[in-house]
Amino acid sequence: MTRVSRRTLLTGGIGLAGIGVGAAAVGVGHEVSASTTDAPSTLPFFGEHQSGITTPMQSHVNFIGLDLVDPADHRVLQSILRMWSQDAANLTQGRPGFSDTEPELAGDPSRLSIAVGLGPGAFASPALASRRPGWLTPLPDFAIDRLRPEWGQTDLVVAVACDEPMTLAHTVRLVIAPVRTRTRVRWMQQGFHHGRNLFGQVDGTVQPDARRYDDLVWNDGREQPWMAGGTSLVLRRIAMNMDTWESLDRHGRELSMGRTLDNGAPLTGSHETDDPVFTATSGGIPVIPESSHIARAHRRTDREQFLRRPYSYDVPPSPGSGDTSDSGLIFAAYQRDPVVQYVPVQQRLSDHDALNEWTTPIGSAVYAMLPGPREYLGETLFA
Amino acid sequence: MTRVSRRTLLTGGIGLAGIGVGAAAVGVGHEVSASTTDAPSTLPFFGEHQSGITTPMQSHVNFIGLDLVDPADHRVLQSILRMWSQDAANLTQGRPGFSDTEPELAGDPSRLSIAVGLGPGAFASPALASRRPGWLTPLPDFAIDRLRPEWGQTDLVVAVACDEPMTLAHTVRLVIAPVRTRTRVRWMQQGFHHGRNLFGQVDGTVQPDARRYDDLVWNDGREQPWMAGGTSLVLRRIAMNMDTWESLDRHGRELSMGRTLDNGAPLTGSHETDDPVFTATSGGIPVIPESSHIARAHRRTDREQFLRRPYSYDVPPSPGSGDTSDSGLIFAAYQRDPVVQYVPVQQRLSDHDALNEWTTPIGSAVYAMLPGPREYLGETLFA
Ligand code: HEM
Ligand code: HEM
Repeated sequence: MTRVSRRTLLTGGIGLAGIGVGAAAVGVGHEVSASTTDAPSTLPFFGEHQSGITTPMQSHVNFIGLDLVDPADHRVLQSILRMWSQDAANLTQGRPGFSDTEPELAGDPSRLSIAVGLGPGAFASPALASRRPGWLTPLPDFAIDRLRPEWGQTDLVVAVACDEPMTLAHTVRLVIAPVRTRTRVRWMQQGFHHGRNLFGQVDGTVQPDARRYDDLVWNDGREQPWMAGGTSLVLRRIAMNMDTWESLDRHGRELSMGRTLDNGAPLTGSHETDDPVFTATSGGIPVIPESSHIARAHRRTDREQFLRRPYSYDVPPSPGSGDTSDSGLIFAAYQRDPVVQYVPVQQRLSDHDALNEWTTPIGSAVYAMLPGPREYLGETLFA
Repeated sequence: MTRVSRRTLLTGGIGLAGIGVGAAAVGVGHEVSASTTDAPSTLPFFGEHQSGITTPMQSHVNFIGLDLVDPADHRVLQSILRMWSQDAANLTQGRPGFSDTEPELAGDPSRLSIAVGLGPGAFASPALASRRPGWLTPLPDFAIDRLRPEWGQTDLVVAVACDEPMTLAHTVRLVIAPVRTRTRVRWMQQGFHHGRNLFGQVDGTVQPDARRYDDLVWNDGREQPWMAGGTSLVLRRIAMNMDTWESLDRHGRELSMGRTLDNGAPLTGSHETDDPVFTATSGGIPVIPESSHIARAHRRTDREQFLRRPYSYDVPPSPGSGDTSDSGLIFAAYQRDPVVQYVPVQQRLSDHDALNEWTTPIGSAVYAMLPGPREYLGETLFA
């Protein structure tokens, strides 16, 4: 009996059909045999844009940062992208990868997406130098940064996301294994998402209007024609100090954010989606403090908008560190142009943000996320 | 639109009611607000046995190994167990913990279980010395072991398991935080489970008959009356070498296990649950090789049975190690008496098991898992 019911695996996404739909009612909970899923839930691999960027967030992610062993050889980069494309085209659809020795682990795609981006180092070869987007440079130094080299910029990033951790692990292996002689994995950042972050805050509420993705998220190819349909990723690893945060009282925590912990409503409203009223005062004092995270982060111009996909990380603290936790946010922001859209906001938060007392950026990198593939990832770069 | 649909979180266990039932059809997929779950899925905390042992496996686990700062003071141990009980009684039912500063993260229990066990060091105080079960001693040395002290025996273990990683992270924090001055966390072992392990094998098929748990799993209190309703846990961390395993051909991999990779059937059968026929031969050669894992692991006496809960781990390889993966099994075996039930099997596998070529035990520990609490965990130990 136990043996049978432990097969009854209820995992996010199994049997989920209507992905983009706000309210899909799907029956799950039937016996899922270990090798069959009856309604695998897949995201497209081919198309104008890569999946996994504007896709509703999956529950698990692994960002893999890799360096090229020989960055000067752009043919190697092309081969790597071709290999990844071949595998991603299959794995995302629930089919085994090319040299997949555990094909059974591929059968449950669970909204798997595999999105690839290039760091500045990927343009080191003379053939590609002129193709680097102007904004693909290190972010300015911010006063709040305590960046650690082990979480720094890499030549490549692969963002693997999925609703099922075993599928994720299997996919990550197939991303790394075939390119192991040509790349070096610098880091992996494993995260999860459940609507709230580890501070207990509802996270991810304010986002660009989906009708404006073409304007705010997707590259139009004006500067670099090959980038049309791609975007940029700013990936920040931000440690969250649980101990000091928890020593603050509840009201103090709400004031630091400008939103309630209960349902994430702005302090001037009652529902999560209410617009914050930054001008509202009570006894002459702003209801949403000017130093609060949302007051500081809120756009001052129409350009200052980006898509945030905040994943939480929570890894065992390094032995002997004496820390009770090693946790925080894997903060991923997507925008057409990070210099124009992202940096002013980050600068403002660095200058002042009540949240800075409990958060510390320890990693930072920028990537050109490739356009969606027709044949293979990066095809326009090499055309 | 994106903002709304990313709230549509489909996570294992939400809305799942009929846990013990092999086939529960539950509608999920409606909009789950960040602070509400309409049918939280809970496991009992109070009762004859701790939940999380014979419970159908949850998808995520974190085993926390802690040492007592002052093992000689049994009153401190009692206080720790009382504190954990108070929090566990609430958290498992979807209510915030006692000093819970993120109460919103408690609302989705997702079959949360918090099971506590004592290592030999917990019996160091004179008041408890005579209460240590005879079998609660280090396992014998096995020739295959390459044990690393960082994954070794601890005074206490807390097995936190859940279908939702955010709930898990929140709970782990509440287990550690209130006892931080009295304990030191030695390790955390985070794992996941999805019916197959990282070698692609269906794992967890052969288990003791549930009708014999009272005989094979639960302690009867004959040696130590206070242990009645408890059990023992053998926790082994076993590294799996993906690189060398994948260089073996598929047939070789099936022969090493004695079961197919396709559906986990024994090589003498066609369904996962078919009984293996170890005497069957083909051309004079055993169909299931004598050196295969199941031929070696299969019980030779009725006593050699235990409940296996195999969780996979897959963590980023330590930077600079040059490894492509750091993954394996968090192998948890529960049995009334590990010396009689577990050790002979482990000895046989150590002497010979085809799988040893790709697997290496790197951690090992034994615990007395407490009886289920009426009032608080460990109450019978201190009575
Ligand atoms: C650990 C660090 C951070 C935490 C815990 C955090 C948390 C939050 C939360 C809870 C909200 C309110 C709900 C929402 O709209 O999603 C929010 C809003 C926002 N955050 Fe952050 N955030 C962090 C870092 C950042 C960073 C690095 C940036 C960009 C540089 C950023 C930009 C924004 C923006 C633009 C908003 C929406 C503001 C508005 O217009 O109302 N956040 N953040
Ligand atoms: C990385 C290490 C290991 C892997 C990958 C592994 C995998 C498997 C697999 C795939 C099966 C067949 C399906 C099943 O019945 O669950 C199995 C069976 C079994 N394993 Fe393991 N196992 C490992 C370590 C161990 C250890 C350390 C023990 C105990 C000392 C053990 C004891 C057993 C037993 C008793 C069976 C059932 C045999 C039978 O009666 O058919 N395994 N294992």
